[in-house]
Amino acid sequence: MDTSPPGSPPRESLDAYARFAARLADGAGAILREHFRRPAAVERKADGSPVTAADRAAEAAMRALIAEQYPAHGVIGEEGGAERPAARYVWVLDPIDGTQAFVTGKPSFGTLIALLEDGVPVLGVIDQPITGERWLGRRGQGTTLNGAAAGTRDCAALASAALYATTPHMFGGAAAAAFERLRGEVALTRYGADCYAYGLLASGFVDLVVEASLQPYDYCALVPVVEGAGGVMTDWEGRALGLESDGRVVAAGTPALHGAALAILGGG
Amino acid sequence: MDTSPPGSPPRESLDAYARFAARLADGAGAILREHFRRPAAVERKADGSPVTAADRAAEAAMRALIAEQYPAHGVIGEEGGAERPAARYVWVLDPIDGTQAFVTGKPSFGTLIALLEDGVPVLGVIDQPITGERWLGRRGQGTTLNGAAAGTRDCAALASAALYATTPHMFGGAAAAAFERLRGEVALTRYGADCYAYGLLASGFVDLVVEASLQPYDYCALVPVVEGAGGVMTDWEGRALGLESDGRVVAAGTPALHGAALAILGGG
Repeated sequence: MDTSPPGSPPRESLDAYARFAARLADGAGAILREHFRRPAAVERKADGSPVTAADRAAEAAMRALIAEQYPAHGVIGEEGGAERPAARYVWVLDPIDGTQAFVTGKPSFGTLIALLEDGVPVLGVIDQPITGERWLGRRGQGTTLNGAAAGTRDCAALASAALYATTPHMFGGAAAAAFERLRGEVALTRYGADCYAYGLLASGFVDLVVEASLQPYDYCALVPVVEGAGGVMTDWEGRALGLESDGRVVAAGTPALHGAALAILGGG
Repeated sequence: MDTSPPGSPPRESLDAYARFAARLADGAGAILREHFRRPAAVERKADGSPVTAADRAAEAAMRALIAEQYPAHGVIGEEGGAERPAARYVWVLDPIDGTQAFVTGKPSFGTLIALLEDGVPVLGVIDQPITGERWLGRRGQGTTLNGAAAGTRDCAALASAALYATTPHMFGGAAAAAFERLRGEVALTRYGADCYAYGLLASGFVDLVVEASLQPYDYCALVPVVEGAGGVMTDWEGRALGLESDGRVVAAGTPALHGAALAILGGG
């Protein structure tokens, strides 16, 4: 019996895409391990964000594999822009989520790989190539960490929740005030984990991740990982995340906690 | 020829203490790996800081080894308080620096082990038992990462410096304003690395770590690691760190950068 929700690709096809995504992560990871903790020039893009030769090489390697295997699929990547973004299947790639961690030698960055079907993230990978941790989420089929089932923990109350964000400086204006209100309600707040925080949430060690100013390549891969593990991940108004979202995201280990966080953030 | 600065113990003795410190770190690390990412009760101490069974077990194991090998030495630990703090040699222990990282499954926490001689930190260990990284600093004899020589990088200007702190919320009042001024001058600021940031500084990937509200067991082990790698680590007024310091520290990869940071922080 196929227990996938309506709109999911058939199980066999999603499994094949998952195996292919693992090849993408393997290829990117080999390049990133070569560059990690080696002196390298950091350039600034037009928006001020840092980029390295490792970013570009890892994304180029993944794009080459996709072009060879699935030439009709679309690709959206942080470094190389969009190709065929209107295709039914679109791969959304961030070779290094957490470039500032990467360039300072801290293994909390990760490679993010998402597959969108008709605009819906149906497969996501968070790969940490230094610690050797790979979270894989498939819509309707659960999330794994290095092949073993992963699940969120049962935390329904803000007062006992562990909250992560990459940095408090990612929030501006009313969003900063909303995050401060949330920080005042939770048990502990930590910064600086980049995409790794969402993996920790999917494995039941973190309860909430709330961020802003994200791009689609920053969040599309996270949705299947978080939701396949039993969590909920939306924008700050509770809407499903897709290519058109506004970059504010909330991931929670349980629906109850997600609702409690939205109630606090709603004023932002 | 003994090139140790005046006041250092003779080289043979410091080497013996370093081998013993490695045994302490091995013992603590084995316990922490057993507890890492296992569900555990987190208690709150009188000051609100978290403590786990892993904290207590790791410190007890280290205290037992010290009592057996060096019964006349003093011990100051985060969990077990002070024994013989007026002894010529005092071990200063933090079984888990970064308990909030530890309880959320993030391997940036570390075990900190310092040896003070007449109040001066002459040996320090930063041990990360999950990633398997151990920085060892010996006064007058350099710093190693897993046995290989480690050194800071040559960054003299704030405008090109990478700055870390555990969280911006560790600074109160004028110190918060001073940290904000510094943050405005550097190339990038990241949070959430706990003691790991000082190891990254000693290995030349981070240029500045500025923190406040620290206890002696948080910073004593860091001084020999940073200074043995070519860096400078003092309080915010440029004074040497010891048991009586006020908990505000600045570690820099070069003397020039240290001076530039002090000039900014001085108003705090």
